[in-house]
Amino acid sequence: MRSSLRGQVDPFIVMDVMAAAAKAEAAGRHIIHMEVGQPGTPAPEGARRALAAALEQPLGYTVALGLPALRQGIADLYRRWYGVDLDPARVVVTPGSSGAFILAFSALFDAGDRVAMGFPGYPSYRQILRAMSLTPVGIPTRAEDRYQPRSGDLPEAEGLILASPGNPSGTVLTVPELAALTEAARARGMAVISDEIYHGLSYGDGCHSALEVTDEVVVVNSFSKYFSMTGWRVGWMVVPPDMVRTVERLAQNLFICPPHASQVAALAALDCIPEAEANRAVYAENRRLMLEGLARAGFDRIAPPEGAFYIYADVSHLTDNSLNFAAEILEKAGVAVTPGLDFDPDRGAQTLRFSYARATADIAEGLARLTAFMAAR
Amino acid sequence: MRSSLRGQVDPFIVMDVMAAAAKAEAAGRHIIHMEVGQPGTPAPEGARRALAAALEQPLGYTVALGLPALRQGIADLYRRWYGVDLDPARVVVTPGSSGAFILAFSALFDAGDRVAMGFPGYPSYRQILRAMSLTPVGIPTRAEDRYQPRSGDLPEAEGLILASPGNPSGTVLTVPELAALTEAARARGMAVISDEIYHGLSYGDGCHSALEVTDEVVVVNSFSKYFSMTGWRVGWMVVPPDMVRTVERLAQNLFICPPHASQVAALAALDCIPEAEANRAVYAENRRLMLEGLARAGFDRIAPPEGAFYIYADVSHLTDNSLNFAAEILEKAGVAVTPGLDFDPDRGAQTLRFSYARATADIAEGLARLTAFMAAR
Repeated sequence: MRSSLRGQVDPFIVMDVMAAAAKAEAAGRHIIHMEVGQPGTPAPEGARRALAAALEQPLGYTVALGLPALRQGIADLYRRWYGVDLDPARVVVTPGSSGAFILAFSALFDAGDRVAMGFPGYPSYRQILRAMSLTPVGIPTRAEDRYQPRSGDLPEAEGLILASPGNPSGTVLTVPELAALTEAARARGMAVISDEIYHGLSYGDGCHSALEVTDEVVVVNSFSKYFSMTGWRVGWMVVPPDMVRTVERLAQNLFICPPHASQVAALAALDCIPEAEANRAVYAENRRLMLEGLARAGFDRIAPPEGAFYIYADVSHLTDNSLNFAAEILEKAGVAVTPGLDFDPDRGAQTLRFSYARATADIAEGLARLTAFMAAR
Repeated sequence: MRSSLRGQVDPFIVMDVMAAAAKAEAAGRHIIHMEVGQPGTPAPEGARRALAAALEQPLGYTVALGLPALRQGIADLYRRWYGVDLDPARVVVTPGSSGAFILAFSALFDAGDRVAMGFPGYPSYRQILRAMSLTPVGIPTRAEDRYQPRSGDLPEAEGLILASPGNPSGTVLTVPELAALTEAARARGMAVISDEIYHGLSYGDGCHSALEVTDEVVVVNSFSKYFSMTGWRVGWMVVPPDMVRTVERLAQNLFICPPHASQVAALAALDCIPEAEANRAVYAENRRLMLEGLARAGFDRIAPPEGAFYIYADVSHLTDNSLNFAAEILEKAGVAVTPGLDFDPDRGAQTLRFSYARATADIAEGLARLTAFMAAR
């Protein structure tokens, strides 16, 4: 069969780690999972109950932009979370944040355009861009900047992706930083996409939306993380008013609509804040254990992770091959972690990502294993 | 906000018809819906029961290619339906057939490549291609060929989309036609995508898969139509063995996975053949009424629709403006139909599509109204 150049995207390295971990488990070993980027908890109980009650309905196509009540409910979040008054007409429900990126990139960029992002960053940014004949441009970030790009660092490009809290760093952009970055991008004619998928999961002063500083931005978010609904594939984007009609036509053709059952569950999830907050309390305790335990084990070169459920560690004093090092940790400590090369193709050979999305007992056990492993090394 | 050229895709005209119909209904009128391309029935009962039972599970991400049991179940369909022995490793579960087209186009074609298809055809082929910086090339088909392209008609292009049963025509390709078209495409170096989304919904000798004549084809199908699961967004593709790994990497990055809840429902739907067949019996009776009633009303220039739930009528003796004519039918007869311009930008001003996916009583009422409308005209 013929094949395209743009279709040859990189594999996720974390998938290889997961496969190796599964193999070890199949051979009878007990593995602690610090590689996975998703909650171990199900969708909120109210969300599941609402869907169960709706299963007698046909659940056919919804309109492309999503159920009107869900768009309204999402708009209301912006008032509660950020004090931003948001017209629900600007909210687009999408098949996961993945669908939102596909829609945003189609609406904003033509083949050959360049889109910049901080390295380290979520690997699928680069791969989705490549699959759409766009050119990802990495901005090398610094540990002292908490792995976030500076407004003075922006390269020549047609677009910029911001991520706060970042994946893998978990670090957060302040309001002045958001303002400086979006203003610098505007001055250079760059469209800004702000990935806010980990909002709600923060442990300090909270997260700020790019919508607090400008309306000229595409904000991407999802029910996957804070609402613990990864496999449901329901996310959203907020777009400038003059972009709604373009995105609607693209969504009609590219996706028809987001999954109806998932939209029903997501609508009810908006009323399940106590359950989401209980999950966050678990992550907060996990984070406390991680910051303490990782440092004790010898993984002490980290930027303060204010959100999400990740810690990104510089391990350049321990290895210059994060692939081998992660394999060694899996083999000897029975802990699965992600090599930094997924997030930073340039410098990720000397970094690791630790996820603390699972149960606290697993985190404690994983830290004990890592401490013993490092002591014996 | 900046905007791309490729993002400026055409709207669905049928959406305007649906909006006009909704407006008439809001004003108190009773409208018969012959414009909509989806069943009025819910997902099979067994599918809904299986999901209800699974709601206590986390339903996190599945692997990108879909639940292994679902891929196996789909492969088994090919033995039962076509006598084709299919390796489940070649089956890729997708977020609707829409997701399958995005994956296929990314894996096969680079920006600027041309992809041919018969006109009339499903409008989103053209729009998805445009959004991905590809060039759709229409092949004008003939009524005497049942609106299907001839193997001698293929233009210069890198790809070819076949559709059997076609939308809007409902006509089916025979095994010799499939063999001739795929062989002609192969000889010209064109990759073939065979859209088989209406398989299972046929009323004569059945439908044949392109897999019966070649393995060098990407077959696209879905649970939307035969299994009555449109809003669930779960479809599949069958790819050549050497394409699986490429599609897997693209799917990991573009979609992460198809919606997990929908996959659980789809797996159970495979065991709900009696319910799907009962739906088909309704469409068969609707089709019988339509063929009789449309001809009686004066819509008698149609190619024999052997599958799907559509009839495509040449109305060139009645109008040269199908938009206005559809609006007149809605206004005077209270029947919503789709102007052919959605399916054929060149000649669709003189055609209409009638859908018979809804309840038989509605079909009978719609036909009575159309007959009265035409008699009074």
